[in-house]
Amino acid sequence: MEKFTATAVAHPNIAFIKYWGIKDHEITIPANGSISMNLAGLESKTTVEFLAEQQSDQLTLNGKNITEIGLERVSKILDFVRLAGKINFAAKVISENNFPTGSGIASSASGFAALALASSVAAGLNLETNSLSSLARLSSGSASRSIPGGFVEWIQGEDHKSSYSKSIAPPDHWKLADCIAIVNQKHKPIGSLAGHQLANTSPLQTARIQDTERRLDICRQAILNKDFIALAEIMEIDSNMMHGVMMSSSPSLFYWDPPTLEIMRSVAEWRNNGLPVAYTIDAGPNVHVICNQENMKTVSDQLKEIPGVINVLSATPGGPAKIIN
Amino acid sequence: MEKFTATAVAHPNIAFIKYWGIKDHEITIPANGSISMNLAGLESKTTVEFLAEQQSDQLTLNGKNITEIGLERVSKILDFVRLAGKINFAAKVISENNFPTGSGIASSASGFAALALASSVAAGLNLETNSLSSLARLSSGSASRSIPGGFVEWIQGEDHKSSYSKSIAPPDHWKLADCIAIVNQKHKPIGSLAGHQLANTSPLQTARIQDTERRLDICRQAILNKDFIALAEIMEIDSNMMHGVMMSSSPSLFYWDPPTLEIMRSVAEWRNNGLPVAYTIDAGPNVHVICNQENMKTVSDQLKEIPGVINVLSATPGGPAKIIN
Repeated sequence: MEKFTATAVAHPNIAFIKYWGIKDHEITIPANGSISMNLAGLESKTTVEFLAEQQSDQLTLNGKNITEIGLERVSKILDFVRLAGKINFAAKVISENNFPTGSGIASSASGFAALALASSVAAGLNLETNSLSSLARLSSGSASRSIPGGFVEWIQGEDHKSSYSKSIAPPDHWKLADCIAIVNQKHKPIGSLAGHQLANTSPLQTARIQDTERRLDICRQAILNKDFIALAEIMEIDSNMMHGVMMSSSPSLFYWDPPTLEIMRSVAEWRNNGLPVAYTIDAGPNVHVICNQENMKTVSDQLKEIPGVINVLSATPGGPAKIIN
Repeated sequence: MEKFTATAVAHPNIAFIKYWGIKDHEITIPANGSISMNLAGLESKTTVEFLAEQQSDQLTLNGKNITEIGLERVSKILDFVRLAGKINFAAKVISENNFPTGSGIASSASGFAALALASSVAAGLNLETNSLSSLARLSSGSASRSIPGGFVEWIQGEDHKSSYSKSIAPPDHWKLADCIAIVNQKHKPIGSLAGHQLANTSPLQTARIQDTERRLDICRQAILNKDFIALAEIMEIDSNMMHGVMMSSSPSLFYWDPPTLEIMRSVAEWRNNGLPVAYTIDAGPNVHVICNQENMKTVSDQLKEIPGVINVLSATPGGPAKIIN
């Protein structure tokens, strides 16, 4: 009996220029390009086994059997791999995150990136980074950014092949850190997949999209030049623009909690006082505070003093998705 | 010795469709039209005396002598009136608000509306409502909306004469109330005049402006039809769009405090549970909660229970600016 198996790990990532809105839902072509940083230390580990005796795809996530939509998103990647690898077997997928659910970090990016890599290797495929990134994108847009390492740009593209992410600088290019202030561990009232579909109901979304190239250029240059202030300003404006679109959608989406606002204010104040820090907020209430690694402890300690902050996680720039034994 | 004097009162107003951004600063032509409701019970009372012996214009506001920019804005209206009324005298202006400074209600709208009316009558002019509204607009855009009564629309226009406000329904047309939740009595870090000038630095402002007619139409119809839910939805989206523009300006403007967000959430929840309420927020942290007059006490009591709410003021639809003896 034949058996094909591989295990991969991938990091989640934090977007400096956000992706919000989807042009083609079937294959997750985004409404705009984005730029992110992988988060070392945090990871998803995924093992894929294609088995002749397996009746249908099966997913175990953090020890729990997942069915329906969660499993369908997994099968979407597996189907693609089976087709390319000429395999007819169903798969057993076991995935684990080393960061808790509800920690404010979406596990879909790291999880689907690890799945794309593990499944393609298990099927005997030898895909290039671009193709792996496109593959991961099918099930989670931001997963495409967790395939390459370090600082990453997701090229919007217009079809499956042309929409992928590539590294713009390796992890050691810039000693940045992400201090993640957790203010709420509950599940989001509206997940980001549902949220994406509301983006176009905001009268501001088109303008946000049209302005994307400008923001991408500024952000990319700031990373290449290690210009913290330039990065800080464009990152915060970009995050605020996305939340402006969210809150002017119909129905309006508010992901912030009162402490979220308190942290945003504190970060602005700290930067005014000379500490290089900047915030960015995904589709949730927790705040990612970007700083230099030398200030990681200071920032983390200061964040913990803000009422409403439950915990602070820290991460430095992470490498690409990789196969482990 | 000749003496020309008059006293007028005017109400502040709360905008349902906001004005943000100025096309012509010299004469306050707004970037977009707006719709508001006057607030009965709250008022500015302003007495103007043109006096032969007066050396220069003099302003006493709530018992305090005001000079420089505050006085210049007053003289701008007085100059216009002197020219039209062929008067050479300087004026003594005494103005008082019956609501405290820092109550979260801008006194510039009611103050300049009362000034425009009092000074024009003191100068022997008999201006129509449209002309009075244009006159008040010279010193404070929103003052143009405090000249007519009830529910008011400010027509954007393109020059001094064509940019004025008119009543779209009298005060008794719809028994609405505004419960104003005060969460912060401190002075704004950035006043709305400075804020207006940043509007165009937001990549979202042009889209907000282009969408104005749609929002005005929905709001006007909601008022005419007394359709609370339609009013609630467009009012909140409009407020969120303005704050989305503010927070994506360079530098970004945040007028909200953490309790502001708590109130917005509570209002959304109350409406979901069947209580007709909606929020709108000006360039400050306090929240105007619009409801039916029959629910005014309930809403006010519920607002007072939210941590961070210092006080709640209430107002019903107010009449036009008027001369008193």
